[in-house]
Amino acid sequence: MALIVRKYGGSSVADAEKIKNVAVQIVKAKDEGDQVVVVVSAMGDSTDELLALAQQVAANPDSRELDALVSTGEIVSATLMTMALHDMGYKAISLTGAQAGIHTTSTYRQARIIQVDTTRVKRELEKDNIIIVAGFQGVTEDMDVTTLGRGASDTSAVALAASLGAKVCERYTDVKGIYTADPRIVPEARPLAEISYEEMLELSQYGSMHSRAIELAQLYNIPILVTSSFVKSPGTLIHGGEFMEVRNKVSSVAYDLDVAKITIVGVPDRPGIAASIFEPLATANISVDTIVQNASVDNITDLTFTVAEGNLGKALEVVRPVCESISARDCVGDAKLGKISIIGTGMQNAPGYASRMFKTLSDEGINIQLITTSEIRITCIVEESKVKDAVRALHKAFELDKND
Amino acid sequence: MALIVRKYGGSSVADAEKIKNVAVQIVKAKDEGDQVVVVVSAMGDSTDELLALAQQVAANPDSRELDALVSTGEIVSATLMTMALHDMGYKAISLTGAQAGIHTTSTYRQARIIQVDTTRVKRELEKDNIIIVAGFQGVTEDMDVTTLGRGASDTSAVALAASLGAKVCERYTDVKGIYTADPRIVPEARPLAEISYEEMLELSQYGSMHSRAIELAQLYNIPILVTSSFVKSPGTLIHGGEFMEVRNKVSSVAYDLDVAKITIVGVPDRPGIAASIFEPLATANISVDTIVQNASVDNITDLTFTVAEGNLGKALEVVRPVCESISARDCVGDAKLGKISIIGTGMQNAPGYASRMFKTLSDEGINIQLITTSEIRITCIVEESKVKDAVRALHKAFELDKND
Repeated sequence: MALIVRKYGGSSVADAEKIKNVAVQIVKAKDEGDQVVVVVSAMGDSTDELLALAQQVAANPDSRELDALVSTGEIVSATLMTMALHDMGYKAISLTGAQAGIHTTSTYRQARIIQVDTTRVKRELEKDNIIIVAGFQGVTEDMDVTTLGRGASDTSAVALAASLGAKVCERYTDVKGIYTADPRIVPEARPLAEISYEEMLELSQYGSMHSRAIELAQLYNIPILVTSSFVKSPGTLIHGGEFMEVRNKVSSVAYDLDVAKITIVGVPDRPGIAASIFEPLATANISVDTIVQNASVDNITDLTFTVAEGNLGKALEVVRPVCESISARDCVGDAKLGKISIIGTGMQNAPGYASRMFKTLSDEGINIQLITTSEIRITCIVEESKVKDAVRALHKAFELDKND
Repeated sequence: MALIVRKYGGSSVADAEKIKNVAVQIVKAKDEGDQVVVVVSAMGDSTDELLALAQQVAANPDSRELDALVSTGEIVSATLMTMALHDMGYKAISLTGAQAGIHTTSTYRQARIIQVDTTRVKRELEKDNIIIVAGFQGVTEDMDVTTLGRGASDTSAVALAASLGAKVCERYTDVKGIYTADPRIVPEARPLAEISYEEMLELSQYGSMHSRAIELAQLYNIPILVTSSFVKSPGTLIHGGEFMEVRNKVSSVAYDLDVAKITIVGVPDRPGIAASIFEPLATANISVDTIVQNASVDNITDLTFTVAEGNLGKALEVVRPVCESISARDCVGDAKLGKISIIGTGMQNAPGYASRMFKTLSDEGINIQLITTSEIRITCIVEESKVKDAVRALHKAFELDKND
């Protein structure tokens, strides 16, 4: 008898019919004699609908209240899933994050799990219940409801898997696994059999999974199996164990169209300048992604950074007065950009990946505006209209259509 | 500085605009220097929508899960109301039933309040917060969410008013108060200035308020002011104090169209017969309302009782085999009935009310099928199609269009 911790995303439980289909899958695991703990997200777009309601009553809704509000979405899906299991004749019980013992900090909207008290979950497992846990949420010391950040039902599932000593955390969603590239724009893209925590962390920036879920999985060495709740698929195993081959290659190409760039031209290169620019942006709650500073010539430098497109106007408003105060020459924004990354363990030890990437883009006539790298990632910022062509070209150049 | 406990029903918080309007009213009370605790129902039809979702996934949804599901409706309205108050620049906090310390039995769907632990509410009041409590819900010893029965946000409000020592519980709804009759069918109907707990309890059978709220208010001697959240109105004060005049009259006429009758003809009049009929009905979860047994002649009697129309078929299924087993002559159902009551303190000590009621109905050509009475109520069961005429005639006959 194994303990299975499984998570179903919002698209898998989007309506009553889908909930009943998932219930059939859950029951299969139970019939095999396993103990089953399932974490569910809110139905389809219900979180967005609740957020829209909040916007109708308040321009700037309070974080504590937002968390109490949106956490109801997962309670709805968890209770409905439990009812569907009962209807099939199985013992089951829904638990809120609080009831499942997920204790968090009180940093609303982005709470961190402090501890998982598994007392109640274990008691219900002993009663032979299938346990359906409302994902995405926890509770403070004061019994106030928190949420763990958008998409954080993944994190709930990994935290439960780690606390309960599960061998693996299964993540069911509307795709077959982690792909070599977005199959909507690269038809040859295919699901990977396995991927490392580190590579997955890089991919998480592109929205494929909540990054804290991966960090937590890595910390507690819980493999995550990403697979489809709609079609049969072996899925992708995210893990930290030995890989079948010592890979020395690119595993996937990721992209993001929601990129805008601000370049501050002619910045005096002296200590404290970067802080004077980025502190007001942080205060205005604008996330800055890539930051690049060109080499300084005559103590004058250019500073470029990227923000989400929707934040460009506000970011320029914040930055322009700073530019004047530091006597920068100019401050220019460009909204029509995109980001492409190739991701793969071992790239840094093997020369030639960067140059092959740059050559591929050049052959496609794509101009590179910014380059940044990490140990396992090379990212280029290019014109937005060229992003999809770039992804296709890179997918081919790195032979991602061929099996591992 | 007074402490105000106020409840807003679902129609008062049905959408974002209405929530903002209610927030304006709440803020007025706060501006007058009072401490304010507000209990809210779920928005408009949202409870029904959640129940409909449950029906889509399970034929017979589990009570514990139903409670966890539907209780989210009040959390949604409470958090939205709190956000609206913040948006107006006021300090406010939402509390679930559990957070507000409403401890109940674990009889899901119909939980009873055991105790209200006001620690958290008092702490938040000391922080100068307006407190918005999700109505209708409580929590068991095991921290499982319960609900107090349909319409029981009234009960939440009265329980909080009693525990906090409030002078009055204000109940805001979409009507101006408790009327002498349904103004949709009697245009001359008018809101009463005051009504006794006892009379209100009789009226609660007709859906005008959760009966446990009234019982609780009576027990703790908390007056309830029923008034409109849409128009200015002095409202109706439900109380147990001395009335301005020793009333000796009918205060209102109530009706119910959802009545079906079952008559068991030729029942042997011996001990245990009634139990043998009503026990299986209780087991089948069918509520029986009025029960009348005609005087026994030659140890043979007729037994008549009423159920909700929707339960008639099921009730007949349950009762027919019993009729055979006790050798009753026949068992007849009639779905097309309605109930009219005149309600008023002091009626029992003043002769003539019953006869005036019967004469009025007779003058209208309405045949009375059943009569039952309590200390402060006389009820007649008549043909459904005659009910509205009967209400209008009785309203006039008892001069309810004239002021107290």
